[in-house]
Amino acid sequence: MTSIRGGVTFVPGFLASGVHAGIKKSGELDLALIVSQAPSVAAGCFTKNRFKAAPLLVTLEHIRKGRGQAVIVNSGNANACTGRQGYRNAQKMVAWTAGGLHLPMQHVFAASTGVVSEPLPMEKIRTAIPRLIASLSGTGGSRAARAILTTDTFPKEAALKVRVGKVPVRFGAMAKGAGMVHPQMATMLAFITTDAVVDRSALRMALRAAVAESFNCLSVDGETSTNDMVLCLANGLAQNHPISKGSAAFKVLTASLTEICRVLAQKIVGDGEGATKFVTLEVRGGRDRSEAHRVAEAIARSILVKTALYGEDPNWGRVLVAIGACGVPVPEERVSIWIDDVRVVKGGVGLGRSAEAQAQKRLRRRQLRLTVDLGMGAVRLTYYTTDLSEAYVRINASYRT
Amino acid sequence: MTSIRGGVTFVPGFLASGVHAGIKKSGELDLALIVSQAPSVAAGCFTKNRFKAAPLLVTLEHIRKGRGQAVIVNSGNANACTGRQGYRNAQKMVAWTAGGLHLPMQHVFAASTGVVSEPLPMEKIRTAIPRLIASLSGTGGSRAARAILTTDTFPKEAALKVRVGKVPVRFGAMAKGAGMVHPQMATMLAFITTDAVVDRSALRMALRAAVAESFNCLSVDGETSTNDMVLCLANGLAQNHPISKGSAAFKVLTASLTEICRVLAQKIVGDGEGATKFVTLEVRGGRDRSEAHRVAEAIARSILVKTALYGEDPNWGRVLVAIGACGVPVPEERVSIWIDDVRVVKGGVGLGRSAEAQAQKRLRRRQLRLTVDLGMGAVRLTYYTTDLSEAYVRINASYRT
Repeated sequence: MTSIRGGVTFVPGFLASGVHAGIKKSGELDLALIVSQAPSVAAGCFTKNRFKAAPLLVTLEHIRKGRGQAVIVNSGNANACTGRQGYRNAQKMVAWTAGGLHLPMQHVFAASTGVVSEPLPMEKIRTAIPRLIASLSGTGGSRAARAILTTDTFPKEAALKVRVGKVPVRFGAMAKGAGMVHPQMATMLAFITTDAVVDRSALRMALRAAVAESFNCLSVDGETSTNDMVLCLANGLAQNHPISKGSAAFKVLTASLTEICRVLAQKIVGDGEGATKFVTLEVRGGRDRSEAHRVAEAIARSILVKTALYGEDPNWGRVLVAIGACGVPVPEERVSIWIDDVRVVKGGVGLGRSAEAQAQKRLRRRQLRLTVDLGMGAVRLTYYTTDLSEAYVRINASYRT
Repeated sequence: MTSIRGGVTFVPGFLASGVHAGIKKSGELDLALIVSQAPSVAAGCFTKNRFKAAPLLVTLEHIRKGRGQAVIVNSGNANACTGRQGYRNAQKMVAWTAGGLHLPMQHVFAASTGVVSEPLPMEKIRTAIPRLIASLSGTGGSRAARAILTTDTFPKEAALKVRVGKVPVRFGAMAKGAGMVHPQMATMLAFITTDAVVDRSALRMALRAAVAESFNCLSVDGETSTNDMVLCLANGLAQNHPISKGSAAFKVLTASLTEICRVLAQKIVGDGEGATKFVTLEVRGGRDRSEAHRVAEAIARSILVKTALYGEDPNWGRVLVAIGACGVPVPEERVSIWIDDVRVVKGGVGLGRSAEAQAQKRLRRRQLRLTVDLGMGAVRLTYYTTDLSEAYVRINASYRT
């Protein structure tokens, strides 16, 4: 498995483009398109928020048959909490794109990200779509990756080349997400392309597994948006032996998608709004994955843990408090905690000032590892999170102004 | 029911004191004592955090029989996550107090608040207890109220006088809490005194009802501490006809304790760390209390809602996002939202820019009301919360330095 520079157009048969339609006042790119030259198998994962944004509702309908060929994405406006008009607008966006590409409407998906509850500027989008289609190219991935950003400070791409049997198969991807980021994929979008030949249910299963290990194991601020989605299009141009569930090739597919999603997830956490720390949180010694996940989530969500990380204070008491409050019956007297390589808690009790002084030095690093052993079992889970800074508050207090 | 100035010593037969034992480096008061001159009935509510601080473990044992006469409280150190030594230290603190007061150990309760995981400075406490006892007085309530504070910016007291039958009955109380404040009473302490004659199970039931309507309906930062407790001592000196469950007098008792707890809860939220807004959140139209509570908690806990309040941005989309993510099956198309008297959402959709402009003016107020109608039923719930400011982050990033 070789990780490579590149995005969605790294994969043969995929074109992409990005333009400024005028949705963002800043003049930045705000409309992106990915198109496969061949009909593709499609799978997706979607937000668990009950109030789903209009483009998600349209995409959910269209993806039901597991086929698709294009994705149109706008940034600057989430088209969420916009009622019936919002739904009609998402349909129009898809219809205009399908018309321009001569595709059936059902083969086009839509996504939006940006401010909630404002109507989409439909006239600007209608005018921009022909330009967007005209500028499609086999090197357009990086422009598309820029066109889907909101508060992100850098575009997020990933690419990978593997072998399925002896046949090379490629994966490309782009994502956005910086704040409002929490398990169940809060305000994040990710689009993955591959030339693998794969059946629909195998693609769906592999994508779900990949998302569980990546986008559902990160938290910037505990928020779950109305717009999150991860989409994967597989156009089959690699001509590998078709991948179906349970085969050795299926394992390669799952591992590849997991790797791609992990890289994107790390980039999202690394771009956490106002974050000054990238924290890899490892929860060990769990009895099962769901309990370990609850513990990790509680720690990653605790504002007090996050502000202590920001203050570079090895205040592991706050980690214990978060664990104790999360509802998992963890035996206090068995908990150990490490900050990077420095153990600060053993048997639920602190190891004293010299350990803390050592740990404090580790906390000065921008990237660090926080390890918690629950002493209950053998399950491990890796989770990505950030600190919480004054800058986060500033960014989100003035988001719309 | 008349609300009156005063604290725990407003009630006849209760003495209190506060001294500086040297636990806080600042020189401020850090050790408090409340004593009833007559044996009292006692009831308490305690944190739901699984990792309970040492003084809670001791108090939980002692309160089992429902009798008690004194409470010793230190601030500056939570005696939490301190293992067996911490437990022994909490026992010592109680034993020294009981010895000095000539009370059985089981009639003395203990509470601590402050930094987690540091050992209590026992020598300082041992030396201070005789001074603390010597300075007990019928006007010492306000010194005691100051001695239990941590990051609080003002002491929190409440008093109330009611009639049970024709007999006047008094209630007095003090509390601390500013950050780490969330339902299940995170890092908050409250001590209530009354001269009511009441049986143990009636007192316990009334206190539980009062806490459910007050301390369990507030959130500053979503944290649940290891140390929270609400204690009530009833010394019976009012000589009212004994209150037992189900009587008219029991309703008066419950209403009085609820009022006292509400006043304290509002003061705690009003002192929320770094908070610039005091928000009364009303959730209406719920099908039952537990669902309404989940919705209120999700809104009050959302960092994005809190930063929007801080930024005075009527970004009601974030309120909808929080509701959608909380797991209660709320029909989006029935939700209405008001900011003070200005309706900004009807049928799940925004009412446009002029409503938002009106709402923005209301958001400039320091005290405001956020009302959400779920359109599902007739249950109402009131919840208290704050915004999240850069100052909160600063306070909690540097708490131990």
